[in-house]
Amino acid sequence: MMTELIAEGDDIFLYLDRRRTYLVKVEADKSFHTHKGYIQLGDLIGKEYGTRIASSMDIEFVALKPNIRDYIFKTNRRTQISYPKDISLIIMFSGIGPGSRVVEAGTGTGALTSAIAHYIKPAGRVYTYEVRQEFAKNAKKNLERAKLLEYVELKEGDVTEGIEEKDLDAVILDMATPWLVVPHAYTALKGSGVLVSFSPTIDQVVKAVEALTDYGFVGIETVETLMRFMQVVRGKTRPQTVMTGHTGYLTFARKAIKLEPDC
Amino acid sequence: MMTELIAEGDDIFLYLDRRRTYLVKVEADKSFHTHKGYIQLGDLIGKEYGTRIASSMDIEFVALKPNIRDYIFKTNRRTQISYPKDISLIIMFSGIGPGSRVVEAGTGTGALTSAIAHYIKPAGRVYTYEVRQEFAKNAKKNLERAKLLEYVELKEGDVTEGIEEKDLDAVILDMATPWLVVPHAYTALKGSGVLVSFSPTIDQVVKAVEALTDYGFVGIETVETLMRFMQVVRGKTRPQTVMTGHTGYLTFARKAIKLEPDC
Amino acid sequence: MMTELIAEGDDIFLYLDRRRTYLVKVEADKSFHTHKGYIQLGDLIGKEYGTRIASSMDIEFVALKPNIRDYIFKTNRRTQISYPKDISLIIMFSGIGPGSRVVEAGTGTGALTSAIAHYIKPAGRVYTYEVRQEFAKNAKKNLERAKLLEYVELKEGDVTEGIEEKDLDAVILDMATPWLVVPHAYTALKGSGVLVSFSPTIDQVVKAVEALTDYGFVGIETVETLMRFMQVVRGKTRPQTVMTGHTGYLTFARKAIKLEPDC
Amino acid sequence: MMTELIAEGDDIFLYLDRRRTYLVKVEADKSFHTHKGYIQLGDLIGKEYGTRIASSMDIEFVALKPNIRDYIFKTNRRTQISYPKDISLIIMFSGIGPGSRVVEAGTGTGALTSAIAHYIKPAGRVYTYEVRQEFAKNAKKNLERAKLLEYVELKEGDVTEGIEEKDLDAVILDMATPWLVVPHAYTALKGSGVLVSFSPTIDQVVKAVEALTDYGFVGIETVETLMRFMQVVRGKTRPQTVMTGHTGYLTFARKAIKLEPDC
Repeated sequence: MMTELIAEGDDIFLYLDRRRTYLVKVEADKSFHTHKGYIQLGDLIGKEYGTRIASSMDIEFVALKPNIRDYIFKTNRRTQISYPKDISLIIMFSGIGPGSRVVEAGTGTGALTSAIAHYIKPAGRVYTYEVRQEFAKNAKKNLERAKLLEYVELKEGDVTEGIEEKDLDAVILDMATPWLVVPHAYTALKGSGVLVSFSPTIDQVVKAVEALTDYGFVGIETVETLMRFMQVVRGKTRPQTVMTGHTGYLTFARKAIKLEPDC
Repeated sequence: MMTELIAEGDDIFLYLDRRRTYLVKVEADKSFHTHKGYIQLGDLIGKEYGTRIASSMDIEFVALKPNIRDYIFKTNRRTQISYPKDISLIIMFSGIGPGSRVVEAGTGTGALTSAIAHYIKPAGRVYTYEVRQEFAKNAKKNLERAKLLEYVELKEGDVTEGIEEKDLDAVILDMATPWLVVPHAYTALKGSGVLVSFSPTIDQVVKAVEALTDYGFVGIETVETLMRFMQVVRGKTRPQTVMTGHTGYLTFARKAIKLEPDC
Repeated sequence: MMTELIAEGDDIFLYLDRRRTYLVKVEADKSFHTHKGYIQLGDLIGKEYGTRIASSMDIEFVALKPNIRDYIFKTNRRTQISYPKDISLIIMFSGIGPGSRVVEAGTGTGALTSAIAHYIKPAGRVYTYEVRQEFAKNAKKNLERAKLLEYVELKEGDVTEGIEEKDLDAVILDMATPWLVVPHAYTALKGSGVLVSFSPTIDQVVKAVEALTDYGFVGIETVETLMRFMQVVRGKTRPQTVMTGHTGYLTFARKAIKLEPDC
Repeated sequence: MMTELIAEGDDIFLYLDRRRTYLVKVEADKSFHTHKGYIQLGDLIGKEYGTRIASSMDIEFVALKPNIRDYIFKTNRRTQISYPKDISLIIMFSGIGPGSRVVEAGTGTGALTSAIAHYIKPAGRVYTYEVRQEFAKNAKKNLERAKLLEYVELKEGDVTEGIEEKDLDAVILDMATPWLVVPHAYTALKGSGVLVSFSPTIDQVVKAVEALTDYGFVGIETVETLMRFMQVVRGKTRPQTVMTGHTGYLTFARKAIKLEPDC
């Protein structure tokens, strides 16, 4: 296995400190300007990822290779869903993996889309629906940058009116009215497939759970997670003062086949 | 895409309710006994996953297709690491995905090993170290059952003494003395690769963070997550009384190349 | 100030360890039996509170003087409200103190009643309503034991039908239908007085907040608290695994005078 | 019982909404200016507390009577301790009440001092130590405003060097080195008295618990609390996004008499 080197046209994840990181494309004749001086990007070409480089003000940066977490949280303005604790649980509880076929709605900035695409590639496929036309362009750009666009089909459309795909492994919803999608998800999912819904309010959760129950889904559960950063310094270790109090509730359910084909 | 049917020899995830689920191998001439009656497993052959089936006491079960979450939390006695909220964040913050090469220690029951293997398959590989010989057999059985053994190399050995692999994408530690592995992880990781450590106590975290800092790792952060289930019933919706108060802290770090090759 | 000594007839809070504590009345000729041997209670008479005493099995106990916290959590079977984190916030956010006049409903085991009585004594008064006749006897016994009965008026009655008292500093509700009490609380409270409601479900909270808004209460806020114990041992410090996930929501509001006397 | 009316010289707690409240002294010929217009304070004299009053811009305010919570959180700049969830638990777990004698250190802005004084009045007494001379003046002003100064003795001094009082019911510490006070607290407390310590870091907690154990204190426990506000609106109910992640840990302990008088 050869060490992978930084090449012209690659993205790097330029790290100054935990709060100041930049997703930057390496171009030989360009420099990247920060308030801590500029960096000659060409100097990085041919270097190993993880290389330290000094800015014009002699401040040290690190040229990391961007991973899926970096793409998700840097290429997207933060949307409601863009919380690592939620996205990671969605991925795992949805049961998806390499090869899975997944419908997602709405696309938004493509943050969750990117995460799903990353884990189902190369053989799987994400069909992502979005009603708001203006979002598609940005989502496409973000997916392209993360080299995940080829695994994604961006669809303009309203999943509350129907899902065109069949035999899906999972349907993942981050939208205002998930309960309206439940009948379509039932039809589109494989038997035993997973529906996931992310909602900020309790009222959305209650409606979604009622619809799922009506359609005979099983294993219905709703969870909420909290994530807190720690300040780790010998003699001064403590949880951090700043913490997000709430992002949303996650509801999971599995499709059980109805006894009579009445839907 | 054809509907996938239950075949002889397949595993099913037999669901009665959220607390009573069973991972069962389908054999034509066997029955599965529960306190709610027995189920003739042969009756399921040729049926769609998600099919409902009545027990001898006329209680309805659902024959789900087990997914990665089911395998992780059913084939393994619960070990310290086996918390979905932690495993899912480890997967995502480690940046791994299809094709990644990962070292893990210790293997334990293979719960986290299974999760990693699921997300790096088919092209990736997990090298999992365990010093306690008696664990290997059970972990192997669990990986085999989840059809993930082919992506895993089970190694008897002590990672505090060295890591044999090179150019790794991630090193994931769930062991008592993670700080002793930091020098070896530095050598074994690619530049920009991720080290993850799960530890129940604050003292382990402080030592690990100090070692990571000494070795020039960047982006070092420690988080703790809490997950709470909701009881969702119109008119009676509330968080559940039962909640796990603590599993462990997760520490993440990225390898930056040292300026002088002094290690 | 003289040192207070244990006298015949006093209660002691006998401490073995954090989980094994006993509220015991000191009688000269009695012994108190535990699985760690018995204690001759007469030996404690004339000793200082906090005295260590060996049982017949030579295990050391400590004879503490019971304080309000001990009475609340030992003389009462745990009822929904009996959570220190909730009771303490109720006391403080209700704004009560020595001299306050407070209505409480329902009495239950008298746990919250005891807490309120402790903080409003000696000049204040608690009027506590309970519809379930069978609760009164036990609550009375508990208040008597904590020497707080003289500050409390135990009333058999349904506060959803009316509150007899006027010019109250606070109305504190731990009951199923707090919203039905809001009109009566409005009439019974002083201008600027505080209504507090403890409810396990979101649905109760929404109804209570709507009723409070309708009646022109201001400063309406709902909070939830979580409390986690720490295991503090050098080298092994960590939050404890066991934690209560939910007790209830606390809603607070202040009475503002309506412009027209239309209620 | 007569309705209490607003008089010249009284404080009112002027309420616009949950985030905009003002602690104001009523003076006949003054007006109080806000960005929502000014209020003629003289107009309030003779009115009932809780009265609504329109500003010059015809915006409605409510003239509440300030209670202990309002004084604590309005007269004091927020210091580390000034968290209701922590102060309320300190009060209750310390076991104090009307008549208690308490030492506190350090005084800071007097926020916690005010709370203690409120609950031990009229017969009790708070002795509050502060090494930083410049804090005393502000704390005195705050206590005076809350009409609690007469129950408090403000002392300039360092409790790590000794506590002058004896037979105390509780010693309450909000200071950087609580472990240095443990020997003095042992001497100053009654047998069975309570020591409470508030500390932001784990390291302070470990040192305090070790000192308490060395001195034979019993019932030693450390807790952390979290408080989250809810947004309660039918159809949009959810926890609030903003939440304080950490204030500090609370450690409680009870004095047991040492077997030999060796301290």
